[in-house]
Amino acid sequence: WQTVLEEGASKLKREYKFKNFVEALAFTNKVGNLAESEDHHPDILLEYGKATVTWWSHNIKGLHRNDFIMAARTDGLYE
Amino acid sequence: WQTVLEEGASKLKREYKFKNFVEALAFTNKVGNLAESEDHHPDILLEYGKATVTWWSHNIKGLHRNDFIMAARTDGLYE
Repeated sequence: WQTVLEEGASKLKREYKFKNFVEALAFTNKVGNLAESEDHHPDILLEYGKATVTWWSHNIKGLHRNDFIMAARTDGLYE
Repeated sequence: WQTVLEEGASKLKREYKFKNFVEALAFTNKVGNLAESEDHHPDILLEYGKATVTWWSHNIKGLHRNDFIMAARTDGLYE
């Protein structure tokens, strides 16, 4: 994960690689389901063979402990 | 749809609004299924209540007639 500063907020960002579009879309759904279950939602950029996930907390315009937990759980979905 | 120039390629980009994350994710899947069925894949940025779709043709680094057709079909999935 990289820490990036975007629009004045620190964010956690990681790119995940896949064989094709379908696998990247399946991962997007896994992350989306996790997000919905925790009511905490990342941005996900879906591209061919690639999904880039960005976590941060809108309310504090930055990173909360929870974002690091969600990042680790996102890694768990990739394995 | 807006025509944008990104990384040296002309692209068609449109942002679609939704009530929440789940609806934006459902739309992402609809567009993803269309993309897979046509073997032509856009970028999709999924955010809370929002999905931004970008079409272009990688092989010509720009816009082909097919991208405009896919854009119109993407609109059809939104209605």
